[in-house]
Amino acid sequence: MEMGEVGREGQGVNRLALNDANKEGRDLLISYMHEEGLDVSVDRIGNIFALRKGRDSREPPIVMGSHMDTVRNAGVFDGALGVLSSLEVIRFLNQHDIETRRGVAVAAFTNEEGARFQPDMMGSMVFTGQLGIEEAWKAEDDDGVTVKDELKRTGYLGSDEFHAGCFLELHVEQGPVLHSEGLEVGVVEGVQGMAWWDGEYTGEANHAGTTPLNLRRDALLAAADLCCRLRETAEALGHGSVATMGRLHPRPDIRNVVPGGAFFTVDFRQYESQRYEEGQKQVVKLIEEIAEKHRVSLSLEQTVDAKPIRFDTGMVDLVEKKTRELGLTYKRMHSGAGHDAQFMSYICPTAMIFVPSINGRSHCPEERTTKADCVNGANILLQCALELSEKGCRIP
Amino acid sequence: MEMGEVGREGQGVNRLALNDANKEGRDLLISYMHEEGLDVSVDRIGNIFALRKGRDSREPPIVMGSHMDTVRNAGVFDGALGVLSSLEVIRFLNQHDIETRRGVAVAAFTNEEGARFQPDMMGSMVFTGQLGIEEAWKAEDDDGVTVKDELKRTGYLGSDEFHAGCFLELHVEQGPVLHSEGLEVGVVEGVQGMAWWDGEYTGEANHAGTTPLNLRRDALLAAADLCCRLRETAEALGHGSVATMGRLHPRPDIRNVVPGGAFFTVDFRQYESQRYEEGQKQVVKLIEEIAEKHRVSLSLEQTVDAKPIRFDTGMVDLVEKKTRELGLTYKRMHSGAGHDAQFMSYICPTAMIFVPSINGRSHCPEERTTKADCVNGANILLQCALELSEKGCRIP
Repeated sequence: MEMGEVGREGQGVNRLALNDANKEGRDLLISYMHEEGLDVSVDRIGNIFALRKGRDSREPPIVMGSHMDTVRNAGVFDGALGVLSSLEVIRFLNQHDIETRRGVAVAAFTNEEGARFQPDMMGSMVFTGQLGIEEAWKAEDDDGVTVKDELKRTGYLGSDEFHAGCFLELHVEQGPVLHSEGLEVGVVEGVQGMAWWDGEYTGEANHAGTTPLNLRRDALLAAADLCCRLRETAEALGHGSVATMGRLHPRPDIRNVVPGGAFFTVDFRQYESQRYEEGQKQVVKLIEEIAEKHRVSLSLEQTVDAKPIRFDTGMVDLVEKKTRELGLTYKRMHSGAGHDAQFMSYICPTAMIFVPSINGRSHCPEERTTKADCVNGANILLQCALELSEKGCRIP
Repeated sequence: MEMGEVGREGQGVNRLALNDANKEGRDLLISYMHEEGLDVSVDRIGNIFALRKGRDSREPPIVMGSHMDTVRNAGVFDGALGVLSSLEVIRFLNQHDIETRRGVAVAAFTNEEGARFQPDMMGSMVFTGQLGIEEAWKAEDDDGVTVKDELKRTGYLGSDEFHAGCFLELHVEQGPVLHSEGLEVGVVEGVQGMAWWDGEYTGEANHAGTTPLNLRRDALLAAADLCCRLRETAEALGHGSVATMGRLHPRPDIRNVVPGGAFFTVDFRQYESQRYEEGQKQVVKLIEEIAEKHRVSLSLEQTVDAKPIRFDTGMVDLVEKKTRELGLTYKRMHSGAGHDAQFMSYICPTAMIFVPSINGRSHCPEERTTKADCVNGANILLQCALELSEKGCRIP
């Protein structure tokens, strides 16, 4: 709650990546880390790592964490919960003088949200070698300010290296599933694949009074038909498939003119690889069929094809085991949103824990998770960290 | 074609109501009128009337005409054809020294298009008592300039009174019906009724990745469903019914957010009174049913309810008879667009003649009507005027 006041603007929080409030939040976080006697390091993209050493310094540590940046007008839980609950785990170890074999560390990744600089998940992408540091540094915000400028200005252009043995991320679900099903925990098996398209139907703009229905080539009607059929296609695919038309702009956008053009976007997600590929094919086929049906021409570009991610089975099973041992209700599920954990999964065994978002709200001041649910999430982190720090990250 | 050069900007013409080019066009028109020895008068809203006197000055004249203003980037036929062909009829009478019992007059109404000042058809509305002169004078363009200011500035704030015995308007169809059916003339029986609504569906904005389909309240999906069902409703109503969604704006208009809001417009037209009322009821019922189906709330406002207009049967029959006598192919039809003739029909027997628009294009530089079709229209005007000027306007 103290961190949630940093960057407060009215009802919401604004700690956009590398702005003044994000710096203030990072500084506060590091003061917490120093209170716990941790070794704090900062890497070239400004990711912060705080290590509590273990008995065996040769093995890479158990890393827990998330991110400290927010969208504009954000809530207080997204990201910060994962970082601060990981620090709470370390506090617990300190308070109870628990020595661990491996080290235990907290990570706070830079610019997960992508609300100011693109791409999102920048810190974990750079850390895991999925994005070059030079390219990341060059990224500009709307005012032409670069990531590197802001890292320097805020004092977070580091040069430390860090190694992770495994990674655990606690995060609010940001969706309505756990809350609506009355469950306490989501054991996250992976991240949905996500495909994005930009499309445009072009028909013919005509007078809405003088053009009979059978002589129209209404581009908005085509896009509307697509919007309806997309939903049916996702329902038929099933297994958690979702498809969304988020943007739709008719041209000329005049009430008494039959629209001659319609720009639209399609977002399709599915967690299972084969179904994801099949779903993409069906979406493209549908977009093309609708063009033919309404006698409009089509231009279509796929802008994103992020394949589904499956987390390490052993790590996921460990999260499930600890959740059960704590007597918590849960379901195994997939994340519909992107998270730093998905990039961490490229380099080390990784899993995620979700706790409920009330009414599924997120990226808004109404984002809420009960204190009891936050405590549940932190307890699972603690139990997993204890077991991992003794047994190592490669669980059979 | 000479008039079509006045206000030329690139491929198109810009004689927006009461701008400099519109003044230049009016001045040119009046010079043509004076060449024919006509009595020119200008009324308080700037409508121009030019009278060729008949033998019997007690009876009001046969009036033909249309308007001289254009939309932005217009073609050369919309409006000007009706005014100039009426003048051509009078030229023919002069050239052949034909004396008529009643007078024959040309009318050019102010601001038919409504592209600069609203409402459209302002000149004929004021002339027929459907709009007060004070209200019309106060109308402002986007820069806050009033109609009265511009009438004064351009020298067209008149004070003459004029009386019409009947009214005939030749106009390009502005739709594709005649061209696509290969017909030469449209005998216009009336003007479609037109109903406009502004609507807004409000559901819930949600993350496109984390929100399962069954938990969504997608306002854009609702509006898209409406767009598709509107078309079906208009098809089922039949008899020339048309319905159009011209504008649709999802909120927040972000590709990975399920739209929580959608603003839309509906335009419904039908020429037959009872079907028009029935169609309106069905459209409103549909908009409401869709809100319920998609669990979104609805705000709906009807902004226009212009009842269908039926022209005088005798006048329409006369146009048909003269069309047939000239050996021209035709169909009886309704106008999908509004015209000055619809207001003139409130005060005197009125009819309209349509000639084909190639590919139905209008309000754009591609607006075309062949010279032969223009001549056909003028010949029908001439034949009608000759008969009306002898027999009077109340044809049995």
